[in-house]
Amino acid sequence: MENEMLRTDLADFDFEERYEELATLVNQKQLRTVRDTLRDWPEVDIAWFLEELSPEKAVLVFRMLPKELAAEVFANLEADRQLYFVNAITESELSAIIEELAIDDAVDMLEELPANVVHRVLKVAQPETRSLLNKFMKYPDNSAGSIMTAEFVELKPDMSIKTALNHIRKNGADSETIYTCYVIDKARHLTGVVTAKQLLLAGIDQTIGEIMDENVIYCTTADEQETVTQLFSKYGFISLPVVDGENRLVGIVTVDDVITVMEDAATEDMEMMAAITPSEKDYLHTGVWETWKQRIPWLLILMLSATFTQAIINSFETALAACVVLTAYIPMLMGTGGNCSSQSSVTVIRSLSLGDIEFRDLLRVLWKELRVSVLCGLTLAVVNFGKLMLLDRLTVTVAAVVSLTLLFTIVVAKLVGGVLPMLAKKLKLDPAVMASPFITTIVDAVSLLIYFRFASLLLGV
Amino acid sequence: MENEMLRTDLADFDFEERYEELATLVNQKQLRTVRDTLRDWPEVDIAWFLEELSPEKAVLVFRMLPKELAAEVFANLEADRQLYFVNAITESELSAIIEELAIDDAVDMLEELPANVVHRVLKVAQPETRSLLNKFMKYPDNSAGSIMTAEFVELKPDMSIKTALNHIRKNGADSETIYTCYVIDKARHLTGVVTAKQLLLAGIDQTIGEIMDENVIYCTTADEQETVTQLFSKYGFISLPVVDGENRLVGIVTVDDVITVMEDAATEDMEMMAAITPSEKDYLHTGVWETWKQRIPWLLILMLSATFTQAIINSFETALAACVVLTAYIPMLMGTGGNCSSQSSVTVIRSLSLGDIEFRDLLRVLWKELRVSVLCGLTLAVVNFGKLMLLDRLTVTVAAVVSLTLLFTIVVAKLVGGVLPMLAKKLKLDPAVMASPFITTIVDAVSLLIYFRFASLLLGV
Repeated sequence: MENEMLRTDLADFDFEERYEELATLVNQKQLRTVRDTLRDWPEVDIAWFLEELSPEKAVLVFRMLPKELAAEVFANLEADRQLYFVNAITESELSAIIEELAIDDAVDMLEELPANVVHRVLKVAQPETRSLLNKFMKYPDNSAGSIMTAEFVELKPDMSIKTALNHIRKNGADSETIYTCYVIDKARHLTGVVTAKQLLLAGIDQTIGEIMDENVIYCTTADEQETVTQLFSKYGFISLPVVDGENRLVGIVTVDDVITVMEDAATEDMEMMAAITPSEKDYLHTGVWETWKQRIPWLLILMLSATFTQAIINSFETALAACVVLTAYIPMLMGTGGNCSSQSSVTVIRSLSLGDIEFRDLLRVLWKELRVSVLCGLTLAVVNFGKLMLLDRLTVTVAAVVSLTLLFTIVVAKLVGGVLPMLAKKLKLDPAVMASPFITTIVDAVSLLIYFRFASLLLGV
Repeated sequence: MENEMLRTDLADFDFEERYEELATLVNQKQLRTVRDTLRDWPEVDIAWFLEELSPEKAVLVFRMLPKELAAEVFANLEADRQLYFVNAITESELSAIIEELAIDDAVDMLEELPANVVHRVLKVAQPETRSLLNKFMKYPDNSAGSIMTAEFVELKPDMSIKTALNHIRKNGADSETIYTCYVIDKARHLTGVVTAKQLLLAGIDQTIGEIMDENVIYCTTADEQETVTQLFSKYGFISLPVVDGENRLVGIVTVDDVITVMEDAATEDMEMMAAITPSEKDYLHTGVWETWKQRIPWLLILMLSATFTQAIINSFETALAACVVLTAYIPMLMGTGGNCSSQSSVTVIRSLSLGDIEFRDLLRVLWKELRVSVLCGLTLAVVNFGKLMLLDRLTVTVAAVVSLTLLFTIVVAKLVGGVLPMLAKKLKLDPAVMASPFITTIVDAVSLLIYFRFASLLLGV
C-alpha cells in the first residue's frame, strides 16, 4: 500500500467504491479480513459502511473492531443505528464503549436514546463516568456546555516545559486536542493558555507560568452556541475553554464540533426562512411523513393567514368588478412586496447570526433600509409606470395607482423585513422564524390596503 | 494583570470598552503606551481598533507595532484600510510586512488592491516571495489553491522523531500550523501525515516513516472549495494538504480559513435564495447604493416576469368578471405555491451544498417530493375545502375549483422546486440562483393556468 493515497476530487471516495467487495466478504463471514481492511479507514467511513449494511450484519462487524476504534466509529453512527447496537451488544462491550467515548459524544448519544436504554447505559458506566454524564446531560440544548468535552490537557503554572511535555505524553492520548493546553491554579480556576507550538518552541528549562498567555478568551457553560461559533470564526481557534459559574475550567469546545454547530445553525436558518420546521436529519434520511410534518404546519398557517388578503379583496369586490384590470396587477404587487421583505429580512437575520449587527443597531438598520427601499421603490415604480403606459397601454391614472402602490409597498416591505427579525431577537425569539409567516402576511395585507386606497383616491372606484 | 481574563458573554469584549481610553492616548500622541497595551491584544481586535480610528491616526499606531504583529494585524484589516496603509508606509516597511505575511493572506490582499499598487507591492517583495505570490494568484477564485497557504511543516520519512522535533523547533515558528505535519519523498510527493500528537506520544528513536499514516486524505489545487469544506466537516481536520497535478505537495488549507469559506458560502446561498446578488462585505459596511445594486436586478426581473401572470389573468378577464369571487383566492393559491416550492428548493439546495445529495439522487428526490407533495396537497386541499364551505359559504363547485387547484399547484410547485436546483447543479450553475426567480415565475404561471382550467371545466366560465 506504500504511497497509495486517497483521491478526493468529489465527495466520493475509494471507500464507497470498495463497498461491494467488503459486503461480499461480510456475507462470506470473512469478518477478520473485513476488520483488517476497515482498521485503515477513517472512523467516519467505517460508520458509513456499517450503516449501509443490514443491522444484523453491521453489528457482527462492529463487535470485531478494536475497543478504541469501536468507540470512535460508534460516535459517528446515526441515532437509530446506535440504538440497535446498544441493544445488540453485551453489558461488558457496552461498558467498554462508554468508557472510551469522548464525553460529548456519549452525551449526544444518550440524548437520542429512549429512557430505558439510557438507564441501562448509565448502569454499566463506571461511577466517575456516570456522574460526569449526568452532569453534562443537564446543560441546555443550545448552550456551550452541551457541546463541550471533558477530555483536555490541564497544566499547572509551576510545571517546567519538560514536566509538561511528559504530562502530555502520559495523559494526552485520550484528549480531544493536545494542541491547546489550559493552565489552572489550585482551585481549578483558568489562569492561562499554552499552545503545543509554544511548548515545542520554548526552552526546556522555562516554566509554564513563564510562557503561558494570561489573556485567555473563554466562554461559560451557559453561553449560547452562537456566541461560541462567533468566537471561533473571529479568532480562528482550534479549541476554546469553558468555565462554570465560579470560573473553574470544566471543559473545552473543539473546532470540529463548532463546524457541525455552524452548519446545523445555517441549515436551520435556511429552513426557517423557507417556512420549514428544522430537523436534525439530512434530507434523504428523513422519511416522507417526517418531511410532511416539517412542512405542513407553516403551509397551513400561511394558507389560513391568506384569509386576510381574501377578506380585503372581497371587501373591494365592487371596485374590482368596476375596474377588472386592477386584478391583473395584484400578483405582481404582492410578489414584489414579498421579494423586497425577504431581501431585507434574510440579510438582517444572517447578519444577526454572524454577529455583524445587534439590537442596538436598530436605528442604523432602519435608516439604511429606508434609503435603500426608497431607491428600489423609485426604480421599480418608474420602470413599471413606463411598462404600463407603453406595453399595457393603461390610462395614466391606472398606471399611477399601480406604480404608487408599488413604491409604498416596497418601503413598507423593506422596513418590516428589516425590523421584525431584530425585534424577535430582542424578545429572545428566533429571528429566522419571523422571516416567513408574519412578515409575508403583514406585507401582503398592507400592499392590498395601499392599492385599494390609491384606487379609490385616484379612480374613485 | 495576573489572572485577569477576558469575558465573552456576548460578542462584546473588554477591548471595545477600552476604545475611548486608547483613542484618547492616541490623540495625546502617547503612541508607545498605546503600542504596549495593544501588544497583549489578539490581532483581530487590534485590527478592529485601527479601523475605528481615522486612517491618519491608525497608520501612526500601525507603524509602531512590532514587525511580526504588524503583519498579522494587517492581514485582518478590511481591503480599503489595507490600501490606505500600503500607500502610507515606506518601501522597507511594506517589504517587511510582505515577507511576514502568510502567503494566503498576502494573496487575499493583492486580489483587492488596484493594479498599480499590486505592482508596487510585488516590486518590494523578495524574488522568492514574488514568484510564490505570482504562482498563488493564478489559482481560480473558487479553488482550493486560492485558500491554501505555503507555510507548513514538511518532514522526511527517514527522519528520527528527535530530528523531526528539532526541525519543527527551527522551522515551525512561521508555519500556519505545526499540529499536522506532512511527509514528502525526494520528489516532493505527498507520502504520509504525522500529527504533533503522534510525534509527542512516539518513542524518541522511532522514525517518521514508522509512525506516519500513509492514508492521507488530500485535495488538489483545482478542487472546488465546497469539496474542501465537505472534507473538513466530515473528518474534523485541522488542516488538509493540497497537491498539484503531479501529486506534489504545494500547500495546506487550515481550518480557520475553512470556517470563513463555510460562513461566506452559507451567506451567499441565503442571499441568492432571497434574490440578492451576493457581496463580500457585511451589512453595515455596505453602502446604500451598493445594497441597491445587490437587490434591484432581481426585483426588476421578478417584477417584469410577473407580466406572465398578468397576461394570464387578463386573458381570463371575462371569466373573472363573471365570477369575481375567484379573484379573492388568487393570492392564497400563488402564495401557497410559492411557499411549497421554496420549501423544496431550499432543502435541496442546502443538501447539495452539504454534499448530502448529488445529481445521481435525482430520481430519489423526485419520488420523495412527489409523495410529500401529494400528502401536503391533500391536507391543505381538505382544510381549505372545509374552510370555503363553512366559513366563506361558497358553493361546492367553487370550493372544489379552489381546492383542486391547490392540490395540483402544490404537487407542481414541490416537483419544480426539488428538481430545478439539481438540474442547475448538473449544468454547473449555482443551484441557489434557481431558488427564487425561475421557480417562482414557473409556479405562479402554472398555478393560474390550473385555476382557470378548473374554473372553465367545473364552472363553465
